[in-house]
Amino acid sequence: MMGLIFDMDGVLYRGSEPVEGAGELIRLLRGRRIPFIFLTNNSTKDPSMYREKLLSMGIDVSEERIVTSGLATRIYMEKHFEPGKILVIGGDGLLREMERLGWGVVGVEEARNGEWKDVKYVVVGLDPELTYEKLKYATLAIRNGARFIGTNPDTTYPAEDGLHPGAGAITAALKASTDVEPLIIGKPNEPAYEVAREKLDGVDEIWMVGDRLDTDIAFAKRFGMKAIMVLTGVNSLEDVERSGIRPDLVLPSVKELTGYIKAKLEEEG
Amino acid sequence: MMGLIFDMDGVLYRGSEPVEGAGELIRLLRGRRIPFIFLTNNSTKDPSMYREKLLSMGIDVSEERIVTSGLATRIYMEKHFEPGKILVIGGDGLLREMERLGWGVVGVEEARNGEWKDVKYVVVGLDPELTYEKLKYATLAIRNGARFIGTNPDTTYPAEDGLHPGAGAITAALKASTDVEPLIIGKPNEPAYEVAREKLDGVDEIWMVGDRLDTDIAFAKRFGMKAIMVLTGVNSLEDVERSGIRPDLVLPSVKELTGYIKAKLEEEG
Repeated sequence: MMGLIFDMDGVLYRGSEPVEGAGELIRLLRGRRIPFIFLTNNSTKDPSMYREKLLSMGIDVSEERIVTSGLATRIYMEKHFEPGKILVIGGDGLLREMERLGWGVVGVEEARNGEWKDVKYVVVGLDPELTYEKLKYATLAIRNGARFIGTNPDTTYPAEDGLHPGAGAITAALKASTDVEPLIIGKPNEPAYEVAREKLDGVDEIWMVGDRLDTDIAFAKRFGMKAIMVLTGVNSLEDVERSGIRPDLVLPSVKELTGYIKAKLEEEG
Repeated sequence: MMGLIFDMDGVLYRGSEPVEGAGELIRLLRGRRIPFIFLTNNSTKDPSMYREKLLSMGIDVSEERIVTSGLATRIYMEKHFEPGKILVIGGDGLLREMERLGWGVVGVEEARNGEWKDVKYVVVGLDPELTYEKLKYATLAIRNGARFIGTNPDTTYPAEDGLHPGAGAITAALKASTDVEPLIIGKPNEPAYEVAREKLDGVDEIWMVGDRLDTDIAFAKRFGMKAIMVLTGVNSLEDVERSGIRPDLVLPSVKELTGYIKAKLEEEG
């Protein structure tokens, strides 16, 4: 059976505008019981926040189908690491996921009281409330032996007025101040694949639908997925030509993907 | 005639404690009219703030002898660049120097009102008040064509509880978010040498006295100065052995330098 992984921003919507045909595609998949999940490198929101956002654009999916890099970080840590206190640099979504681990989160107040010495994990995503003090305690904790984990490698975050610094810019600062290489969870890395693979249990062919060559398409190619690129997001056809990363299929948008999937289903009977 | 450049922290004092013999050495140099300056990669304080700090430790030097990386940045920009608005990420010392240029400083308030679009220079030092918002406007401005300048390359800053993030960690975040390589002013780079050289006009042999191999000693070797390392700061004799950077002379502290200079002066008559 086939299954799909969708990136969200630039694929199903742009900012707060749905891409035409996104709702219909999702209804088709649900109707035909084709397994699919949404997988985003964003860690500032959690799945319940994304469910609401998608609903407001007419796309109705359960939380279980939504995997943020924050959720993937929680699942990966739960499976591979021993419990230990966490210092979080990130938005509300990441903070919630880390609190759900139940291992204890060390805030700036506690860090000030010397609790950075007890920190076992420093987990870093895009943090709109980043301060020097947070970088300071993260640096002290990592230099003290805490494991350094980044939710995703994106160095920028596309916003209305241009590109803002992403999680990858904040991890770059800490890499410089600690000389330690972080474990990065999100696309195109292995931890994100491991978490997505488990969500798509029983599927033997995965189609990865995304707009970014360096994350989505590189991720698909690295792990043997069918790489489907849509042109409603960050990268263009010219980028494909310039890049060494080759999608298996390029479509104007997810609208055309609906027809493509219908044709495939009819073929198979 | 010979002249000397001293690094300050780890050479003349540690934290707020003077190194034994530092005051005597400075009195000797002033008495014999040997030219000398203090050159620090720190940009958070300005020369008047350093003069006060040094005075409190019994070391009396005029502001003119004190060159911070913030001052060096101002002097270098004044000489080489056209006037233009500046976005500053840095402490009070750097902010004061940039205001002294008289080119206009764009604060966060103004940046919020869209003035980041007028920014011609983004100047970055260690900023204890760093926020995500500052990184955001710096990223937007640099991506909009503003020149990216770092006061110094130090990725860490030694404090009582360990190493904190330095200016080089903050520039690393912006390098990641902009894909632009900054011009770095401080040791061991050429702009710092150019500024120091002018302050030591008429001198034909410079002795650079410092505690850090990667900044002070590398700086001395790169620009043909006599590299004198003292062991009262960051690096040890073992570091010298491990490193590829070879000082010309290693002394326990500036105390021994006083005797060394006296002997040299007697030799020369």
